[in-house]
Amino acid sequence: MTVVASPSSTVPAFRIANLALAEAGRHQLRLAENEMPGLMALRAEFGESKPLAGARIAGSLHMTVQTAVLIETLVALGAQVRWASCNIFSTQDDAAAAIAVGPTGTPEAPAGVPVFAWKGETLEDYWWCTEQIFDWSTEAAAAGETWTGPNMILDDGGDATMLVHKGREFEQAGAVPDATEADSHEYRVVLDVLRRSLATSTDRWTVIAAAIAGVTEETTTGVHRLYELAGAGSLLFPAINVNDSVTKSKFDNKYGIRHSLPDGLNRATDVLIGGKVVFVAGYGDVGKGAAEALRGQGARVIVSEIDPINALQAAMDGFQVARIESVVEQVDIFVSGTGNFNVIGVDHMLRMKHLAIIANVGHFDNEIDMAALESLPGAVRVEIKPQVDEWHLPSGRSVLVLSEGRLMNLGNATGHPSFVMSNSFTNQVLAQIELYCYPEKYPVGVYVLPKHLDEKVARLHLDALGVELTVLTPAQSAYIGVPIDGPYKVDHYRY
Amino acid sequence: MTVVASPSSTVPAFRIANLALAEAGRHQLRLAENEMPGLMALRAEFGESKPLAGARIAGSLHMTVQTAVLIETLVALGAQVRWASCNIFSTQDDAAAAIAVGPTGTPEAPAGVPVFAWKGETLEDYWWCTEQIFDWSTEAAAAGETWTGPNMILDDGGDATMLVHKGREFEQAGAVPDATEADSHEYRVVLDVLRRSLATSTDRWTVIAAAIAGVTEETTTGVHRLYELAGAGSLLFPAINVNDSVTKSKFDNKYGIRHSLPDGLNRATDVLIGGKVVFVAGYGDVGKGAAEALRGQGARVIVSEIDPINALQAAMDGFQVARIESVVEQVDIFVSGTGNFNVIGVDHMLRMKHLAIIANVGHFDNEIDMAALESLPGAVRVEIKPQVDEWHLPSGRSVLVLSEGRLMNLGNATGHPSFVMSNSFTNQVLAQIELYCYPEKYPVGVYVLPKHLDEKVARLHLDALGVELTVLTPAQSAYIGVPIDGPYKVDHYRY
Amino acid sequence: MTVVASPSSTVPAFRIANLALAEAGRHQLRLAENEMPGLMALRAEFGESKPLAGARIAGSLHMTVQTAVLIETLVALGAQVRWASCNIFSTQDDAAAAIAVGPTGTPEAPAGVPVFAWKGETLEDYWWCTEQIFDWSTEAAAAGETWTGPNMILDDGGDATMLVHKGREFEQAGAVPDATEADSHEYRVVLDVLRRSLATSTDRWTVIAAAIAGVTEETTTGVHRLYELAGAGSLLFPAINVNDSVTKSKFDNKYGIRHSLPDGLNRATDVLIGGKVVFVAGYGDVGKGAAEALRGQGARVIVSEIDPINALQAAMDGFQVARIESVVEQVDIFVSGTGNFNVIGVDHMLRMKHLAIIANVGHFDNEIDMAALESLPGAVRVEIKPQVDEWHLPSGRSVLVLSEGRLMNLGNATGHPSFVMSNSFTNQVLAQIELYCYPEKYPVGVYVLPKHLDEKVARLHLDALGVELTVLTPAQSAYIGVPIDGPYKVDHYRY
Amino acid sequence: MTVVASPSSTVPAFRIANLALAEAGRHQLRLAENEMPGLMALRAEFGESKPLAGARIAGSLHMTVQTAVLIETLVALGAQVRWASCNIFSTQDDAAAAIAVGPTGTPEAPAGVPVFAWKGETLEDYWWCTEQIFDWSTEAAAAGETWTGPNMILDDGGDATMLVHKGREFEQAGAVPDATEADSHEYRVVLDVLRRSLATSTDRWTVIAAAIAGVTEETTTGVHRLYELAGAGSLLFPAINVNDSVTKSKFDNKYGIRHSLPDGLNRATDVLIGGKVVFVAGYGDVGKGAAEALRGQGARVIVSEIDPINALQAAMDGFQVARIESVVEQVDIFVSGTGNFNVIGVDHMLRMKHLAIIANVGHFDNEIDMAALESLPGAVRVEIKPQVDEWHLPSGRSVLVLSEGRLMNLGNATGHPSFVMSNSFTNQVLAQIELYCYPEKYPVGVYVLPKHLDEKVARLHLDALGVELTVLTPAQSAYIGVPIDGPYKVDHYRY
Repeated sequence: MTVVASPSSTVPAFRIANLALAEAGRHQLRLAENEMPGLMALRAEFGESKPLAGARIAGSLHMTVQTAVLIETLVALGAQVRWASCNIFSTQDDAAAAIAVGPTGTPEAPAGVPVFAWKGETLEDYWWCTEQIFDWSTEAAAAGETWTGPNMILDDGGDATMLVHKGREFEQAGAVPDATEADSHEYRVVLDVLRRSLATSTDRWTVIAAAIAGVTEETTTGVHRLYELAGAGSLLFPAINVNDSVTKSKFDNKYGIRHSLPDGLNRATDVLIGGKVVFVAGYGDVGKGAAEALRGQGARVIVSEIDPINALQAAMDGFQVARIESVVEQVDIFVSGTGNFNVIGVDHMLRMKHLAIIANVGHFDNEIDMAALESLPGAVRVEIKPQVDEWHLPSGRSVLVLSEGRLMNLGNATGHPSFVMSNSFTNQVLAQIELYCYPEKYPVGVYVLPKHLDEKVARLHLDALGVELTVLTPAQSAYIGVPIDGPYKVDHYRY
Repeated sequence: MTVVASPSSTVPAFRIANLALAEAGRHQLRLAENEMPGLMALRAEFGESKPLAGARIAGSLHMTVQTAVLIETLVALGAQVRWASCNIFSTQDDAAAAIAVGPTGTPEAPAGVPVFAWKGETLEDYWWCTEQIFDWSTEAAAAGETWTGPNMILDDGGDATMLVHKGREFEQAGAVPDATEADSHEYRVVLDVLRRSLATSTDRWTVIAAAIAGVTEETTTGVHRLYELAGAGSLLFPAINVNDSVTKSKFDNKYGIRHSLPDGLNRATDVLIGGKVVFVAGYGDVGKGAAEALRGQGARVIVSEIDPINALQAAMDGFQVARIESVVEQVDIFVSGTGNFNVIGVDHMLRMKHLAIIANVGHFDNEIDMAALESLPGAVRVEIKPQVDEWHLPSGRSVLVLSEGRLMNLGNATGHPSFVMSNSFTNQVLAQIELYCYPEKYPVGVYVLPKHLDEKVARLHLDALGVELTVLTPAQSAYIGVPIDGPYKVDHYRY
Repeated sequence: MTVVASPSSTVPAFRIANLALAEAGRHQLRLAENEMPGLMALRAEFGESKPLAGARIAGSLHMTVQTAVLIETLVALGAQVRWASCNIFSTQDDAAAAIAVGPTGTPEAPAGVPVFAWKGETLEDYWWCTEQIFDWSTEAAAAGETWTGPNMILDDGGDATMLVHKGREFEQAGAVPDATEADSHEYRVVLDVLRRSLATSTDRWTVIAAAIAGVTEETTTGVHRLYELAGAGSLLFPAINVNDSVTKSKFDNKYGIRHSLPDGLNRATDVLIGGKVVFVAGYGDVGKGAAEALRGQGARVIVSEIDPINALQAAMDGFQVARIESVVEQVDIFVSGTGNFNVIGVDHMLRMKHLAIIANVGHFDNEIDMAALESLPGAVRVEIKPQVDEWHLPSGRSVLVLSEGRLMNLGNATGHPSFVMSNSFTNQVLAQIELYCYPEKYPVGVYVLPKHLDEKVARLHLDALGVELTVLTPAQSAYIGVPIDGPYKVDHYRY
Repeated sequence: MTVVASPSSTVPAFRIANLALAEAGRHQLRLAENEMPGLMALRAEFGESKPLAGARIAGSLHMTVQTAVLIETLVALGAQVRWASCNIFSTQDDAAAAIAVGPTGTPEAPAGVPVFAWKGETLEDYWWCTEQIFDWSTEAAAAGETWTGPNMILDDGGDATMLVHKGREFEQAGAVPDATEADSHEYRVVLDVLRRSLATSTDRWTVIAAAIAGVTEETTTGVHRLYELAGAGSLLFPAINVNDSVTKSKFDNKYGIRHSLPDGLNRATDVLIGGKVVFVAGYGDVGKGAAEALRGQGARVIVSEIDPINALQAAMDGFQVARIESVVEQVDIFVSGTGNFNVIGVDHMLRMKHLAIIANVGHFDNEIDMAALESLPGAVRVEIKPQVDEWHLPSGRSVLVLSEGRLMNLGNATGHPSFVMSNSFTNQVLAQIELYCYPEKYPVGVYVLPKHLDEKVARLHLDALGVELTVLTPAQSAYIGVPIDGPYKVDHYRY
């Protein structure tokens, strides 16, 4: 039995879980576990009581080594799991293989978790994979049960949640609409999936939706979708917004980027950062981490901001704050981390120094106006190495574009380190437990984790860093009106 | 006519505004104006339209040079003002004199604002002063009006607001209660003031309270009182919580302390900070500013925290996080900035190195357990110079206690610099305008300033630092769903 | 004609310069040229006058992309060049291929420089390669000349210089001595080379030595050998110690390591550096760069030192200074940069945390006591990936050893960036010009470059960083007694 | 008996040592001793053996609290001492009083060291004081000896040494020359002193010079004079250049300024440093310390340099490097630390922002062109407070000049902290011991302290900072050819 498969021809044979891949992945897992103390602490705390026993989790989140540790934690807490990646490029095949084979299985007799993910899927592959995490007929048969779907979703970006909502919507409507001119290629693929589904069953997604106790969502984009659904009254089950836990948003954005931005620059270009002039667009948490990292390497950092409060913070932190058009000719490295689009445009590129480096750590690839670059007459692209392109411009100079304008900390480095993801994923597991074990606390709606759980996530990561936490005396606790065990802060505290 | 006076014998003659003091203060004001661009921008924007015309502001806030610039800004915007300090020690006499005399007056013919404040008041003086800011009979007579009190309060710590609430409460009750055993000396003084008042008038404070359109409150303590009043349904007029504007709490706590902590250490002790081991209790905004400042001077900083999230932040910022009892013997300088009490106790002091320095930048003087120190058998205090005491301990060693355990950045240095206060006070002025000009927007309750005004405060401080703000294009504005002119962030954004 | 060849069977076919390799290398060269402004400035300054016309340079230095730019600079200045690497692992094959083929040649008709170097030589290969850079018979024949050797050496580590000295010494003695018990395998290979040579010619090295105008030496080790030869009166030609130029030793050690240490850690382990405890052995220039880099990533750095002056510097820079045995249990990452041996021993390893990381940026692989580790009963090595080994220890824990204890910034990253090497290599080129063009200034002996040339190297790197240099007025020049164009400092100035 | 006196009318009565002053000074001394572990360690090491027994030291060095600890250390080691200050303004009267009275004396029966120094001497006072440290007739009489002068000099700036050399020179010539037009007022005072001396004795200075075993010199200026004398063959006794010990020049310049520059800015102006643009002229050790301190306070630092090597260091450390004329309009605070003159001129001042701050930490007051400012038509000076002047300029703006352009870390703050001076002064004491106890090692000439003593100075300061020094194993010592106890580095090592 293969543990990954695909309707397309894009899955090379070696993608199928094999022993070498699985062993390599298992090594990586073991190292990652050492850097993910939050997840390991949850295994210790809940491994016996198994609060997720009975939970059937459909997971859609980058199938990396760190996610593998997350998956095995969910399993250790009693859950059954099926998994897909939430991005066509982000799967680490060895991690996928290790998870599929399982710690005690073999490729021939896999004893892990069904994983539907490989590096370099087509969009058709991708949505096929996503569909598989909702098909629990094998598990149901084995258990002699009548359900055929999951009862929990763990989502990143909201694709799994969207599929359920759209599937049910079209079943209620009795038809899948035709694609319009404006629909993206990807949305057409989704419509095709659901059209096929509707041809097979008129209530498949309706039944699935009814069984789902809740979803826990990892990112801004997915959270945004959830609030829109809730606002429109269309949300079908409760959701926990993991993204806005302090130990998620203030940690992976700032400390994750601080680590992975210079890492990506180094792997991509080997250019000395010291002494260079670096322009960082945006001084939110991502920009703060970027600026700190680059100053730490001896660069001179210039920041741009649209928000006067953040701009004032940048100035008070000692950075020059300027518009890109005022300084573009002096800059050696451009870093965009705004969440907006067209932050660095072709007009800027034409004024840049020869071999200026352009790096996006913001969000979508349109932070850099790649579309305009690609259609610029006279612009010629030369690949220096994978994910590093030199674009020769009509200015007679050229620029280096990393990861084709996509997130370079993922494309040119390896993304957030395990320790950062341990914070995020410990939030995920706690959120799964909340929704699954305490449904009465969460009517349909979107919630953030209560502060005491956010604080718990932090607490579980202190020992690994040798941190000694101070404990309030009862008198001190009474004096400031804060419980000894927390929560310690008002909700609007800004950290 | 004297511009300050007192029922006690503690006002030395030189406290009375005189030309030399007033001129010295005027020099300081002129320099401070250059560092308070927010206030100066408000003068430019509103100096002609005078939105505060008709406002009669009773101000209770440290009578410093920076406050003098605030007062003259309120006057420039049309307000009439009477002022007291909110602390018996914090008045800068030259600033008070300059404000009392006014830019165009003389001590003999003062043309400024009535100020009731001097450095070193007794508690009786203090509450007499506070009472004076509610007596507008002179102004009423001059204007041929029937009112005799203010219609706005600008408060710091809530004493002025409390006096009105208590005064009205006792008038309603028909009597001022006797002091109990548990009442502090200060509260007894307040009761005396109100008892005298009630003997004179049965509705003085009731009339005053009815006329007040609102209060703007500067600090945590005062804000806490306001929320309590509002929660109990006892709040008599709307209030704006200035303290929790981002440009207030995230600026004066962090950047103010970063400046004034090393300043105070230097003025007090002249001890080289470089190479020293410094213990910083608390890693909130105050602790973050303290740790950054001391590292910037080459100290090795050890942090303590009770909140695991803040503790994790400290670790990720590169600091050792430990309990005081684990490291007390290694530490050269202790800094407490927690907002709690008995953070540094006598047991710790007895274990400290010879001539270890103890500094409080947190809040009340009980962060350091001064009471226990003062009653420790065998402990002998020797004043090295004002605000610097060497305490010889039974351990055979001695420690240096700064400002008797009170805020040493005020006691040993000069507190927050003008630029920081400009942010806070620009919030104050905007809050006064909101409550006075748009009463319909603020039913009785406690509010924070709307985000666009918080952003405006920041915006008014950018030019002075040479900051160029980037402006969203209409397309970018539409893409992220944020107006070009802001507000730019959701309310729970943490900065 | 092949441009590299070997007597051993270890040179795979693809090592022979081919078009794909050469083109890949040429891309790298083009990017590196942009980061090596010093060398490019020398091409501009001396490209026409060609001061090295007539120079025949035998080069022995890591055959990397940066060295390729150096070689083409020497050629642009008129020199003829033959090249070998000075390390069996350090050759970048694409750079070697690009240099061999030359900018205008093809693999079939190479028009570059004869290069004898490939990644992964045996010791026999290595010394064969080194011998080739002294055999200029092809060039002599083409020029119709009678000389058959070089007239200049550019050396790194002193192997080329040593071969000449030993060769001549044995020719004078009439015999190559037998190897003794104590001789290393490598020295036996050298003796074999020279024995074969003596069998062919009794004065080959004597003639070569007589023709050599001088050597410029890159590193500490080579410089040490030169001072020993000079001290013993055995030095055969003048030498310039490039290593001790300020723009070499204070730049590549400090700023090079600051860049490449975190780079190597990231590529090897992907472990989050932020929040970790890192132990840096040695606070010389290497240690200073390491500590700065790691603090810049949010690590807490503990330093060890044997020299009280450097220890005091570390303390004044805010670092804890401790012996390894006092803190070994708390440390996550060990970095050794002392130049000494057995700095990190097996006893320390047995006390380390599970999966502690051990990295050497110091010098030889014996900074880490790898020999003792390899012979430790019960220690088991598992390769995680190339250059990253997990060693399972009898303690029940394991440690991660990078690059088998060798320089991890080379083994796990790519060594010093181009900009740093541009400083070093500009010194090299200026030193070659000095010795070749001004022999009268340099009787046999060891020299450092005169300060004005050291300053020139710096000067040539300023424009690339946007640095504006201030120029002394004649009056200022007179006042401090320093020429307007330098040199600006006394020789013992410490920078 | 008074312990200070003066021929002029400028010594107010309170300058004469009195009990209150002496007690205040004694408190300061006790605190300073805690911060001067090097000196205290020398007392412990040599207090019994008293190597300076018989030494009669004439000291000319700023009569501060730290110097008081130095003086009492010299006495503890057996020396007799007479002292003058080397600057008319730098004496701290309480320290002088404490030293004069002595730990066990009273003002009526002083038991300390004869001190001839007070704050605010005239030039006539100054040279009278300097003369007194060479008149040991009282001590000689008490001892029944025939000598009447010192046998050692401890000098700072070289005035004491110069007086001896000039005195002897004029005695040899038989006449003191007339002053010329070009002679400064101060030199005329010196000529008067020597003219009076020659009228009294024809060989006073000749005898004194012959008795002097050597001088130890503190500063650059004095060292420069010594090398000139030695170069001209005129040096009369051996000299040790204390200034160029690593633990002196690399410590007080860098770490001293890092401490005292922001201290002086704060005491002088209370201006928030965070967010400001600061221009630092010069990136030597002083500039490095200044730039680090200001960045540590959140300022954005722009550096200027004439030396391309230092300029490159500044760039690699992340600072913008620019000429003053390129950026003068953006800068809030100007700091000059070059050692040159007219670095900041009136033309620059006329272009500065309103209330820009001008601070000199370099050397002489002519770093800032005060002479040109004072003679600028239309420029008006207003004293804001002592050592802080606002200069209203014809530009319509004004600038703040600190300490009249003199060293503001002395004028507006308290100079180098005790711990820094402990390093410098421990060098001084060791140098005194070297010259006095081992005259055979030092023929007439100028020397730096041997490296092992420089290292010893550092070593004596480690415990106070909790530094654990690592000790070489015998094998490691042999491997790198460095003694276990040092010296550890070659002489040209740059630290």
